[in-house]
Amino acid sequence: MIKQDIPDIIVSRLPIYLRALRHMQALGKLTTSSQELGATVGISAAQIRKDLSQFGEFGKQGTGYDIAFLIDQLREILKIQRVWNVAVIGMGDMGHALSRYQGFSDRGFRVMMVFDNDPAKIGGQVGNFVVQDTKDIVAAIQSSGIKLAMLCVPAGAAQEVTNMLVTAGVKAILNYAPISLNVPAGVRVQYLDPSIGLQRMTYYLD
Amino acid sequence: MIKQDIPDIIVSRLPIYLRALRHMQALGKLTTSSQELGATVGISAAQIRKDLSQFGEFGKQGTGYDIAFLIDQLREILKIQRVWNVAVIGMGDMGHALSRYQGFSDRGFRVMMVFDNDPAKIGGQVGNFVVQDTKDIVAAIQSSGIKLAMLCVPAGAAQEVTNMLVTAGVKAILNYAPISLNVPAGVRVQYLDPSIGLQRMTYYLD
Repeated sequence: MIKQDIPDIIVSRLPIYLRALRHMQALGKLTTSSQELGATVGISAAQIRKDLSQFGEFGKQGTGYDIAFLIDQLREILKIQRVWNVAVIGMGDMGHALSRYQGFSDRGFRVMMVFDNDPAKIGGQVGNFVVQDTKDIVAAIQSSGIKLAMLCVPAGAAQEVTNMLVTAGVKAILNYAPISLNVPAGVRVQYLDPSIGLQRMTYYLD
Repeated sequence: MIKQDIPDIIVSRLPIYLRALRHMQALGKLTTSSQELGATVGISAAQIRKDLSQFGEFGKQGTGYDIAFLIDQLREILKIQRVWNVAVIGMGDMGHALSRYQGFSDRGFRVMMVFDNDPAKIGGQVGNFVVQDTKDIVAAIQSSGIKLAMLCVPAGAAQEVTNMLVTAGVKAILNYAPISLNVPAGVRVQYLDPSIGLQRMTYYLD
């Protein structure tokens, strides 16, 4: 199937299904249904069946989904059977937290290098990493082949650093800076700005 | 218009539009078009027009959108002309970072109280806050009327704390714990787990 055929909104739900399935697996469950999975993630069973059917036939009428098999399939679809190296830019509170985040292990990611432009931080240690100078981003990332970055710099620096990341060959940026980034075609940005997450919910509050 | 009529996916794009519009405003721009806004956020002009038309008539044929007016309208739709108080639960790295996050000001949110269950942290200071004991969540949040929480506790504690938040009257949870939460109808969860954000992009990488 041609990738462009599948709407981004469907792709964006697969990691949610995967996380729920792994949680079920950790609880010792072997099979599940679209109803049960849907109740866990707050998405209708029909939507889940429709989403998964875009990628193949993963369930059986009557017996539902084999959890381990569906996990494997989703990991393959999302390309996280491998481990992706990630760079973290900006060693403020958020960059610190991400550099030391325990939730990447076994989810497909590993922080490999961290950067800051503050002379007081460059050369210092954050978690297991020595902080590198932001001005060296292009060379360091190019030579390492890193394709993913988490951007935690102040809003005023975010576009400039983004341009460097793009030059270095980064193809996917998780943006914590409270600003929209301009990137060329072929580079993707996900916004994890917490204000955005909250604003998506206040709409529904009284 | 009845709220339930508008798909969640449309609501979820409004904060993205709002952020881009505020950025344009900060650059001194007065008007924009769906084309320009679309190029900034990576969404088609047609989709933006369709999304906004769900809520009213905000642009004029030929002159486009008045940025200040559209910002006001989006803030009203998203109910962030007011400031929402937020509780942060879990004072690890991520909770620390969120408690001190500078990006909430003028975006509709203010951290009001922070919690942890570690005796070594309870009573200590994080940013401007004294860390309260997680066991006191229900009483503290109920008496403050807080409706939003950011959850940064370990996966193993997340559901139990969520149950307390729900009992306390919290209606919207920004979840940083790498786990799916079960909440009753009327309570919303947004997942800001960074692994999920990365997994939404690796699908497109080679």
